[in-house]
Amino acid sequence: MRTTMGWQSAADGSTALQRIAFDRRELREDDIAMRVDFCGVCHSDLHAVQGALGDHAALGSGALVPGHEFTGTVTEVGPAVTGFALGDRIAVGTLVDSCGTCPMCQAGQENFCFEGPVSTYGGVDRIDGTSLKGGYSREYVLREKFAYRLPGHLDAAAAVPLMCAGITVWEPMRAAGIGPGSRVAVAGLGGLGHLGVKLAAALGAEVTVLSRTADKAVDAQKLGATELLLTTDDKQTQQAFGRFDLILDTISAPHDLSVLLRMAALDGTLSVLGFPVDTTVRIMDLTAGRKKLTSSGTGGRRHTAEMLAFCAEHQITAEVEVLPSARVQDALDRLDRGDVRYRFVLDLSDLDQPASS
Amino acid sequence: MRTTMGWQSAADGSTALQRIAFDRRELREDDIAMRVDFCGVCHSDLHAVQGALGDHAALGSGALVPGHEFTGTVTEVGPAVTGFALGDRIAVGTLVDSCGTCPMCQAGQENFCFEGPVSTYGGVDRIDGTSLKGGYSREYVLREKFAYRLPGHLDAAAAVPLMCAGITVWEPMRAAGIGPGSRVAVAGLGGLGHLGVKLAAALGAEVTVLSRTADKAVDAQKLGATELLLTTDDKQTQQAFGRFDLILDTISAPHDLSVLLRMAALDGTLSVLGFPVDTTVRIMDLTAGRKKLTSSGTGGRRHTAEMLAFCAEHQITAEVEVLPSARVQDALDRLDRGDVRYRFVLDLSDLDQPASS
Repeated sequence: MRTTMGWQSAADGSTALQRIAFDRRELREDDIAMRVDFCGVCHSDLHAVQGALGDHAALGSGALVPGHEFTGTVTEVGPAVTGFALGDRIAVGTLVDSCGTCPMCQAGQENFCFEGPVSTYGGVDRIDGTSLKGGYSREYVLREKFAYRLPGHLDAAAAVPLMCAGITVWEPMRAAGIGPGSRVAVAGLGGLGHLGVKLAAALGAEVTVLSRTADKAVDAQKLGATELLLTTDDKQTQQAFGRFDLILDTISAPHDLSVLLRMAALDGTLSVLGFPVDTTVRIMDLTAGRKKLTSSGTGGRRHTAEMLAFCAEHQITAEVEVLPSARVQDALDRLDRGDVRYRFVLDLSDLDQPASS
Repeated sequence: MRTTMGWQSAADGSTALQRIAFDRRELREDDIAMRVDFCGVCHSDLHAVQGALGDHAALGSGALVPGHEFTGTVTEVGPAVTGFALGDRIAVGTLVDSCGTCPMCQAGQENFCFEGPVSTYGGVDRIDGTSLKGGYSREYVLREKFAYRLPGHLDAAAAVPLMCAGITVWEPMRAAGIGPGSRVAVAGLGGLGHLGVKLAAALGAEVTVLSRTADKAVDAQKLGATELLLTTDDKQTQQAFGRFDLILDTISAPHDLSVLLRMAALDGTLSVLGFPVDTTVRIMDLTAGRKKLTSSGTGGRRHTAEMLAFCAEHQITAEVEVLPSARVQDALDRLDRGDVRYRFVLDLSDLDQPASS
């Protein structure tokens, strides 16, 4: 076994993570080891640490080392590895394995693997049965199949959120055929939402941000939106009924979907992406206008590679606030209050230093 | 005013309808009057009579003359009527008016009119504000715009259910692009479901009936399905996970949607059509496989005309049991027990005779 350092949650639901030393597996034939340089703080990390996911996700519970969007550098490769060499810049997302043979895996949608995709943290390794620890750590070991080359001119910290937030908003846009002339709304301007705006605008869509407050109107325009619509203003809301081909709902708190559904156009889609555990919808709210309700989480290898290539071509990365990893609790607490524009990224290099007392 | 005879519900939720005489409006410029020859008994008639719809539908409540799928003969036309002449065979569905100017009406989807489509019964007339009485009657008066010519070689009784059940299953199939090679499942083999099988098969799809019992297996094949899948058999159900491009869920009783969602293919659609009042779905059940959840009710003029032309070309009508209208209570009671293959149609000609004591 190989030892590394990381940040582990207690099992009490608090955001007080402890610095720990723990083992990574020795490399298998097709494994690579990487030094983790930057790891994003995803809203589902917060949910997982707080124990709020119940049986809804494969992120595990109890003592966790979170982190499922990170970039770094290849430090070692197994003998059968062909795609990566020492020193390569790489990116890792929410999945690190799948069965590889079911129809979903064959379709390049390993995120929907019938046997269950293996989550980057909290997932159970398909070979040794251990529970995986995530990217809030200095080293990670994974099959090369689930690592992606990080395009050379993308900033290694700002590119991190592409691997979870980015692919999560990318997949529904591709499924809905978004392109020039499409009308896309983004509800909630956070980690997912701000990348939704950037990607939709780069695809040529007309983008509207739906928000309860106007304080992000300037940001919305900077990110590429043509306008911000105040959902607390009944008049603005009603004028938008039947308007959008696709609504990316990135709100993570429980909320009413019926108003958003009314803003979808005939045959339009409401895609619920903010992982609102236990949120339900009444079938009757779907009836008028033949609205489509969808959800999804992250993406498969094929679309992830496609998204990274698109981001490289269009110079798209996230807006991030980089913090030393020792400030992880601060990041989680501020995320819980919605105090971030738009994603925290932990710099793991401080794990090379002795812990401060 | 003009007087006609019909069957009206009490306000007590019973299925004991009373034979009554009541007034129809005098013809307006663009109105036609028709003798109603055959009227279908739709499951939503039963819901409406029982007062089970609450505020979910525009079918009205209390004392109702139900009936929103019927065929008959033109008996009089207003001076501005251009599309119909005396003696024409016509068909009427669930809508008899709409605003005509909103985006939905402009798109030919009057069923989704932003001002609310006017229901054939229980709806409020846009001009005189009266509550409309439906097709369980000997005469009906409506704008010619919402009447359809009944193709000459379709049986006038068997064609009746096309106007509600038929268009309700047609719209989601057209929206999903069903054609040769598509895999369609139909859950529930009743009024809607049996037309779903016929229409899907005629469109070239491979059709599977999903049922809790095997007693309709022979019927399913006769209607055009390749197989009946027993949803009470876990093995059969699990083998169908991820299989269907479109699932037409025509079950009207409350039921669990999660198993049906699991049978949808990647990017497949579950279309909930059985009007299951207050049924909800958990967003989390949509996540794996990027399933689309839709619902809808009936259809607009454009697709209704298209559906009728398709049925004429393919000689498709419903399987019906025709009863004299005086046996309407029997029909409603048997429908409530699920004892019909597959749609009751009332023959209104007995209303020309004096009431039997």
